[in-house]
Amino acid sequence: MAQGALREADPELQACIDECLICERICLETMSHCLELGGGHAEAAHIRALLDCAEICATSAGFMLRGSPLHGAVCAVCAEACERCAESCESMPEVDQQMEACAETCRRCTESCRRMAAHAASGLGAIGSPA
Amino acid sequence: MAQGALREADPELQACIDECLICERICLETMSHCLELGGGHAEAAHIRALLDCAEICATSAGFMLRGSPLHGAVCAVCAEACERCAESCESMPEVDQQMEACAETCRRCTESCRRMAAHAASGLGAIGSPA
Amino acid sequence: MAQGALREADPELQACIDECLICERICLETMSHCLELGGGHAEAAHIRALLDCAEICATSAGFMLRGSPLHGAVCAVCAEACERCAESCESMPEVDQQMEACAETCRRCTESCRRMAAHAASGLGAIGSPA
Amino acid sequence: MAQGALREADPELQACIDECLICERICLETMSHCLELGGGHAEAAHIRALLDCAEICATSAGFMLRGSPLHGAVCAVCAEACERCAESCESMPEVDQQMEACAETCRRCTESCRRMAAHAASGLGAIGSPA
Repeated sequence: MAQGALREADPELQACIDECLICERICLETMSHCLELGGGHAEAAHIRALLDCAEICATSAGFMLRGSPLHGAVCAVCAEACERCAESCESMPEVDQQMEACAETCRRCTESCRRMAAHAASGLGAIGSPA
Repeated sequence: MAQGALREADPELQACIDECLICERICLETMSHCLELGGGHAEAAHIRALLDCAEICATSAGFMLRGSPLHGAVCAVCAEACERCAESCESMPEVDQQMEACAETCRRCTESCRRMAAHAASGLGAIGSPA
Repeated sequence: MAQGALREADPELQACIDECLICERICLETMSHCLELGGGHAEAAHIRALLDCAEICATSAGFMLRGSPLHGAVCAVCAEACERCAESCESMPEVDQQMEACAETCRRCTESCRRMAAHAASGLGAIGSPA
Repeated sequence: MAQGALREADPELQACIDECLICERICLETMSHCLELGGGHAEAAHIRALLDCAEICATSAGFMLRGSPLHGAVCAVCAEACERCAESCESMPEVDQQMEACAETCRRCTESCRRMAAHAASGLGAIGSPA
C-alpha cells in the first residue's frame, strides 16, 4: 500500500512534517509575542517574516502529508522563508527567550526542508515509490 | 446531482462564500497596511482582530464550499469575528480609505454570515438537500 | 507581560493548542490514506468530515496562539467537528490502525476543546488576563 | 507610503492575487464536486492535485498581500501546481462543465503566476519599491 509505505518507510519525511508544524506553531506564537512587545518588534518586516514562515510551513506540511509530487519544490521555498525568519528574529534589538527559541526552530526547519528538497530533486524523493 | 443543485440552487450560499473570500482578502491587505503605518495601527489587539477575521472567513468559505453540515455554526462565529474587526477598524485614531473599506466589507460579511447561520439553524440549510 | 503570562501560566491552553495541531496532522494524513484505499473510504461525506476537522483544528489553534477573545467560540465548533470526524472514522466498513488512531486523537481533541470552550464561557478564559 | 504604492501602482500584482483566490475557490468547489461524482473522479491523485492547487494558491495570495520578498518564489511553485491541476481535470474520463471551468481558471492562474515569478526574478518585482 503506497500510503502505508509512506508512513512507515520514510522517517525523514515524517521528521520534516513535524519540523514544519513545530515551526508554524512557534512563529505564530512569536508573532503574538512581538506584537505585544511593540516598538521595533512589531515592525512590518519582522511580522511579515513570521507570517511568511508560518504560512509556508503549514503549506509544506500539507504537501508532504498528501504525498504530493511537488513537495520538494515547496520545501525549497519553505527553507528560504525559515532562514529569513531566523535572521529577522536574531536581528531584533533585544533577543529574548521566545525569539531565541523561534530562531533555533526556524534553523532546524531550514535544514530539514533543504534535505527534503535535495532528496526530491535527486529523483529519490517520489513519496511512496519503491526504495 | 447534489453538487449541481448546490451550485445552481443556492444563490445565498454562493454570495456568502464570495463575501467571506472578499473579506479575507481585504483583512490581510489591511493588516499589511496597518503594520506599515505602525503606532496605534500596529497594536496587538487590532492586528489580532484582522487576522482572526481573515482566518475564520477562509475557514467559513471552506466549510460552505465543501457543503459541510457544520457550515452554519462556523458562519455564526465568523459573523462575530467580522463585527469585531469592523469595530476595531473604526476605532483607529485615523480611519483612512483602507480601513473604511475594510470595516464596510466586514459589516457586509457579518450580515451575510448571520443570515447563513440562521438559515442553517432553521433546518432549511442542509446544503444540497431538496428545497 | 501579558504574553509571557499566557505562555507560562496556562498549561490547559497550551495542551489544547497541541491537541488541535496533532489532530489537524492526523486528519490530513488519514484523508490521504482513505483516498488511497478508495471505495467507501473515499466517499464524499467521510473526506469532508476529515477536511472539516483539519481546517477548524488549524483555525482553533490559530485563535488560541493569538490569544483571541473568540477562541472559546471557535473551540466549541471545533469540538463538534472533531466528534463528527471520530464517528465517521469509526463507521468505516473496515477500521484499520490509521483510522483507529485518527478517531482516538479526534476524541481527545473534542474533550480538550470542550473544556476550553466552557472555560472561556465561564468568564475565566480571557487569555492573558489576571487570574 | 510603501503600501499605498503597492495597492495603487501594481495592477499586475493585484490581478495575480485575484487569480489565485479565484483559483483556490474553484479548486475547492471542484474537489467537492469530484468526491460526489466518485469513481475515477475521486481517485487520490486527482483530489491531491486539486488540494495542492487550492493550498498553494491561498499561500501565494498571502505572500503577495503581505508584500513579501519571497512572493516570486511562491508564485513559481504555484504556477506549477496550477498547471498540474489543469492537466488532471482535463484527463478525467468525463470532463463536465465544472472541470472545464476549473481547468481554464487554473491555466489563467498559471500564466499570471509565471509572469509574477519572472517579474520578481528580474529584480523589478520588489513590492512597494520605487519603479
